[in-house]
Amino acid sequence: MQLLVNPSPEKCKKNLARPVHKTKQINKIVKPILKKVEKSGDKALKKFAQEYDHVQLDTLLVTEQEITAAKELVSKELKAAIAVAKSNVERFHAAQATPDLVEEVMPGVVCRRKSVPIQRVGLYIPGGTAPLFSTVLMLGIPAQLAGCQEIVLCTPPNREGKIHPAILFTADLIGISKIVKVGGAQAIAALTFGTESVPQVDKIFGPGNQYVTAAKQLVTKYGVAIDMPAGPSEVLVYADESAVPAFVAADLLSQAEHGIDSQVVLVTPSEKFAKKVLKEINEQLETLPRKDIAYKALSNSTAVVMEDQEKAISLINQYAPEHLIIAVENEDEVVDKIVNAGSVFIGNYTPESAGDYASGTNHTLPTYGYARNYSGVSLDSFVKKITYQKISPEGLKTLGPIVEVMAENELLHAHKNAVTIRLNYLKGKKK
Amino acid sequence: MQLLVNPSPEKCKKNLARPVHKTKQINKIVKPILKKVEKSGDKALKKFAQEYDHVQLDTLLVTEQEITAAKELVSKELKAAIAVAKSNVERFHAAQATPDLVEEVMPGVVCRRKSVPIQRVGLYIPGGTAPLFSTVLMLGIPAQLAGCQEIVLCTPPNREGKIHPAILFTADLIGISKIVKVGGAQAIAALTFGTESVPQVDKIFGPGNQYVTAAKQLVTKYGVAIDMPAGPSEVLVYADESAVPAFVAADLLSQAEHGIDSQVVLVTPSEKFAKKVLKEINEQLETLPRKDIAYKALSNSTAVVMEDQEKAISLINQYAPEHLIIAVENEDEVVDKIVNAGSVFIGNYTPESAGDYASGTNHTLPTYGYARNYSGVSLDSFVKKITYQKISPEGLKTLGPIVEVMAENELLHAHKNAVTIRLNYLKGKKK
Repeated sequence: MQLLVNPSPEKCKKNLARPVHKTKQINKIVKPILKKVEKSGDKALKKFAQEYDHVQLDTLLVTEQEITAAKELVSKELKAAIAVAKSNVERFHAAQATPDLVEEVMPGVVCRRKSVPIQRVGLYIPGGTAPLFSTVLMLGIPAQLAGCQEIVLCTPPNREGKIHPAILFTADLIGISKIVKVGGAQAIAALTFGTESVPQVDKIFGPGNQYVTAAKQLVTKYGVAIDMPAGPSEVLVYADESAVPAFVAADLLSQAEHGIDSQVVLVTPSEKFAKKVLKEINEQLETLPRKDIAYKALSNSTAVVMEDQEKAISLINQYAPEHLIIAVENEDEVVDKIVNAGSVFIGNYTPESAGDYASGTNHTLPTYGYARNYSGVSLDSFVKKITYQKISPEGLKTLGPIVEVMAENELLHAHKNAVTIRLNYLKGKKK
Repeated sequence: MQLLVNPSPEKCKKNLARPVHKTKQINKIVKPILKKVEKSGDKALKKFAQEYDHVQLDTLLVTEQEITAAKELVSKELKAAIAVAKSNVERFHAAQATPDLVEEVMPGVVCRRKSVPIQRVGLYIPGGTAPLFSTVLMLGIPAQLAGCQEIVLCTPPNREGKIHPAILFTADLIGISKIVKVGGAQAIAALTFGTESVPQVDKIFGPGNQYVTAAKQLVTKYGVAIDMPAGPSEVLVYADESAVPAFVAADLLSQAEHGIDSQVVLVTPSEKFAKKVLKEINEQLETLPRKDIAYKALSNSTAVVMEDQEKAISLINQYAPEHLIIAVENEDEVVDKIVNAGSVFIGNYTPESAGDYASGTNHTLPTYGYARNYSGVSLDSFVKKITYQKISPEGLKTLGPIVEVMAENELLHAHKNAVTIRLNYLKGKKK
């Protein structure tokens, strides 16, 4: 981890730059996968399962028997933990519901807005080294709360053609029954085009490796929406001497273990504190099973000593971190000044991992600086807000002439005429 | 306009298919424009103004003098109309504000969510045949209500290097002072990369021709967000014999005059009614200044007689119209069953043009079937919703063990350790 002391904004920008995506090379691999799935459906999915997951699948859909068997394999302790996390996530996401809006903007002119579920959604849960059942909660719970009609979960099988029991248990717990054994870019393609086993969906959610990310970006051409653009995960910790160096080190490491391209950033007013944290990191690193990954991530990471708090906050807002931990004395004041961040963790007893799993907030968050212009996944991500208007004859008598003048000035005479013809009718003139 | 009577779902799908975008050819033209603006800034913008707008510009920014002069040129009548539209749009959009959410999900575990304005937004207002000052209202008002710090409006100049006075008047009325004389793909590039005159923004809004649309899609690679993917405008009218054929014809024509690629669709249970509407269309068409445009749009358009109401509603939801007019006897019942639409106009006295200008709803809506998975522009479009959590020591004692179990089962030990280290500290153990 590099240490910068009171660097210039340019120096900061350079050191905190995110890694550049190598989209071209990856798209070259992903595009033919999309094409093949579009053309051959399940047949292509089974072929890719052989090729990439090293397994021959007869059926792609997870059966009821498999789900029942999986439930037996999850420990009581984990079941209880997942139940608490579910309850917290449900509670915070249910509270996000937008009540219907009805506004009579003028007498006889009533505007409404209503949240309507996106009908068909696809949830992608990565396979790989860690079974991300927590992501099943984070995507599945708001999808269910929103009332999406069809929820399809795709996740890659292991070499025995099985899905991790904790993933099946969690999906079943929140009422998702359509689970498909398919991973990678081919899963994204299946959700986009539909296959014999995989229903076509309107929006695709979920994290994934660079192939999944590239596929999600590419399929937006075909009318499907995605949750947000993605990049490697990241955390920025802003801490002063009121914080505990060991806690800060643990938080930075918990992000660093995600992947070798994860970014972790420490911003602090005190060089002494920064050095204590770096020392703690070195000590704690040794105890971690994923220390090689964390080590590599840390080698691309930076600790910034920034004595001036205004400058520190400006740096944070410019970086726009996915996760932002604030452990400083005047935390409320700092929190109020944060304008770009995905999710904010406040105080010494709020580790990022609390939000990753169970505090109730969503862990699907904008990375790569997208916190400037995107929100994390929430109940809103699973609905559209449709607007409605109803105008009474009396309302049109007031509003109509306004519309006529505006339409005429925009040279859109048919727009004007749609009002005029009604006003004339109301006046008793035929047309 | 083609007439289909009780067609099969396949036939409907084929006839109501949207025109395919020719993205490849357009991207070939747009990509070099983006590159040149990124590289040469204002110099490139001025060169493109000469090439595409046929005007030599010394300065790109609209001056205060120009705005003052423009105000003189707008009629009192239009000023008054714009003021009413502004008031309605403001009222309906202000009502969309999401109150801050605070939820103590467990004792000592407090989650919050707050809307924070996207800091820098760019609004694109097309030039061309019609001066779209109404779009200035539709984008500028929610941007101001949201509290965006920097609002930049780009719009192409005419051959005298001027912007239409109604656009300048409207922008000034809602407090937008940064107005840049730049149109086309080069405007989108300027907002994405920033130039000497045009600030870089976080999100770009607004309609435009196919070059603008292509540019918006392409620049999303560079970290900027856009309001939504775009396509030609469209309306679907669902009307039965309780509706007035002349009104329906006028509504269909008001959409058809937008552009030759506009789509208009009539769905009705009655063939007799459909024929009356078609007859009305032919009569009204003759009176329109933009009749050539409307004629071409109509030649790609379809009237569908669908006697069965369930099938008609299913067709509408499958088509997912940008604008949906419902003028049938059991309107409430039908409205409740609509799950895919941008904005809905209910009853005989609610023409689409009311919403286009002044009813209060936004007119920037998802086209091209994107009403399945996108909302129209609203106050939400100009904010991010940041989540926060704060856990007390007591809260962590309850929630921490849950997180430890889940992290361990996802094989993320550093995630677990960020909790364990704190719990140990609270128990009085050093680390």
